[in-house]
Amino acid sequence: MKVLQGQQVLMRIFIGERDHVGHQPLHTAILTMLRKEKIAGATVIRGLAGFGAKSHLHSTHLLALSQDLPMIIECVDSRENIDRIMPKIDEMVADGLVTLENVEVVRYAPKQN
Amino acid sequence: MKVLQGQQVLMRIFIGERDHVGHQPLHTAILTMLRKEKIAGATVIRGLAGFGAKSHLHSTHLLALSQDLPMIIECVDSRENIDRIMPKIDEMVADGLVTLENVEVVRYAPKQN
Amino acid sequence: MKVLQGQQVLMRIFIGERDHVGHQPLHTAILTMLRKEKIAGATVIRGLAGFGAKSHLHSTHLLALSQDLPMIIECVDSRENIDRIMPKIDEMVADGLVTLENVEVVRYAPKQN
Repeated sequence: MKVLQGQQVLMRIFIGERDHVGHQPLHTAILTMLRKEKIAGATVIRGLAGFGAKSHLHSTHLLALSQDLPMIIECVDSRENIDRIMPKIDEMVADGLVTLENVEVVRYAPKQN
Repeated sequence: MKVLQGQQVLMRIFIGERDHVGHQPLHTAILTMLRKEKIAGATVIRGLAGFGAKSHLHSTHLLALSQDLPMIIECVDSRENIDRIMPKIDEMVADGLVTLENVEVVRYAPKQN
Repeated sequence: MKVLQGQQVLMRIFIGERDHVGHQPLHTAILTMLRKEKIAGATVIRGLAGFGAKSHLHSTHLLALSQDLPMIIECVDSRENIDRIMPKIDEMVADGLVTLENVEVVRYAPKQN
């Protein structure tokens, strides 16, 4: 059982629902990679609307943009482990925003069943 | 192409799905304003349930509150740009919570197509 | 009317949609507790997919895990109030991740109607 306590890093990756790696949605590919790399946990959230890096290049209006809904992938682990996977994130996320925040983990408790 | 790297600010605005500006949902009005003001990116997320500022004034129970679902608008930009739009946020968000957090942007990369 | 300004704490609780306390979903039980304890505000968000503490113990693949969708409960209040409810969170969240972050509240404004 992995122990994760105290100061850790929250990484948030903002991409689009339509982004793909081959035939696989990018968010699925990232989640699979994070899991394979034994990152402590990850969650994918879908936004209702948004704009991002793309909107500075494309003049499509908000309605059209909403057809490529924003996806946020959040994961928490040590700075060391986040740094370790960063080259993979960099390679996979051609288009998007990646942010890091300091968080304090006060509980990380898998059920013992 | 806008460059956004290093220490930036994440602004999160918590409002209700039913909040309106005229006939327009408030979250749409805020997103449109953020885009017009060339904020680097924004995402709207809908919550499933919640309570907030209102719940201290109204005694409606959780079920009733859930009919006005919480909406979160997140955006990331420099402290300077967030400060610049704050008066507009203040004017638009009559009822809600607005928080700021420090984030480190490690990637902000629009596709070059 | 509660005033909440300046440096506060954002608590985020990551659990599963299927987690229960008796017959009640855990996220509903936590939201009810937070409200009863007069925490300033809380929002429940459902993820689309994810893995967490459990995935280190169970070898189920991503698809199977996605049937127990991740739920995130976010709430903002003073460090003192968050510390006060922590024993309850600890008791209720047998299995999950709880993180704390520093946030600056720039607006917390209930409508005066």
